Amino acid sequence: MFFSFDGIDGVGKTTQIALLDQQLRARGHAVVVCRDPGSTPLGERVREVLLASGPEVPIAPRTEMFLYMAARAQLVEQVITPALAAGQIVISDRYLLANVVYQGHAGGLDPELVWQVGRVATNGLLPDRVFLLDMPPGEAGQRIDRPLDRMESRGNDFRQRLRAGFLAEAARDPSIHVIPADRPVEMVQADIWSAVEQCLGTAR
Amino acid sequence: MFFSFDGIDGVGKTTQIALLDQQLRARGHAVVVCRDPGSTPLGERVREVLLASGPEVPIAPRTEMFLYMAARAQLVEQVITPALAAGQIVISDRYLLANVVYQGHAGGLDPELVWQVGRVATNGLLPDRVFLLDMPPGEAGQRIDRPLDRMESRGNDFRQRLRAGFLAEAARDPSIHVIPADRPVEMVQADIWSAVEQCLGTAR
Repeated sequence: MFFSFDGIDGVGKTTQIALLDQQLRARGHAVVVCRDPGSTPLGERVREVLLASGPEVPIAPRTEMFLYMAARAQLVEQVITPALAAGQIVISDRYLLANVVYQGHAGGLDPELVWQVGRVATNGLLPDRVFLLDMPPGEAGQRIDRPLDRMESRGNDFRQRLRAGFLAEAARDPSIHVIPADRPVEMVQADIWSAVEQCLGTAR
Repeated sequence: MFFSFDGIDGVGKTTQIALLDQQLRARGHAVVVCRDPGSTPLGERVREVLLASGPEVPIAPRTEMFLYMAARAQLVEQVITPALAAGQIVISDRYLLANVVYQGHAGGLDPELVWQVGRVATNGLLPDRVFLLDMPPGEAGQRIDRPLDRMESRGNDFRQRLRAGFLAEAARDPSIHVIPADRPVEMVQADIWSAVEQCLGTAR
């Protein structure tokens, strides 16, 4: 079973992933948590290029998309596919949907093109369920209490386009589950857990 | 006008590119020489990851393909497209064909898939003419007088598959011009120049 979490920065993905990991482990499941980009030596290098590069390293939206795809291809091959084959539950902090929205809806590339390239990068492996944590961008922005990275520092207009893009994808893809995230952590957690239990029940 | 040079390592691409650059400049053309991957700050970073990584950074063929595509997307946007728009002649040391052959024919990915992803990365911009410098792999290997990089150190079987892949692509794509390269530099140069003059003549 493969779950991913997505949404604009500051919506609480890290917190909810940690809680879900704990809940699953407490029930005896073997869990692998990863982040995309990242979680392989190559992925972490690419992540650094993507997020830590300054204006001296111009990165076009198309380039950005391919860098994410490279990190993801390695993540699928080296981490996710072996974990699933071993019967483990994989939880990924972001996955292909983030590219579709960041470089597609908000970045100017055709979202369908990003999906197509993504099917090659992932070898067709998509999450059973994507949890899209959703809240107004202004609120999410206030929740980030550290220096912003290259993506995060793009301003509120960009974040509005991101949110609209995420919701547009959710509207047409039943595997994306929108979770209102401007609520107490426990309520958000309860909604996610209920959906996860349903998935695990169906899989049995 | 956009030319690229390709072929296995050691066939003399660097020498022939420098000679063609000189010849074109001597006739008053504005020339931009680039290398793929490379020639942009992002491309050089990706090049380093691709060629200098050791066994502690596993890179699957699919990942490799996407890294090259990222570097190429940036090269097209930042260097090649503006140069062509300004009426300059672009000469690239390798381009998409190298991916089709290294990760496709010799690396196990479907060559047609690499072309498809490449059309996205390049936004459809392919060379007017690809000069494929060809010679037996054993001979080419002997001509490299420096430490081998990650690609070059893969051995003679791999190089045989590369040569066969390059020739298979040339057989079906009339924009790829095979130049026998196990001959004196001046003879190779003369063949290239004759083809370039023809291209420039047609373009007028």
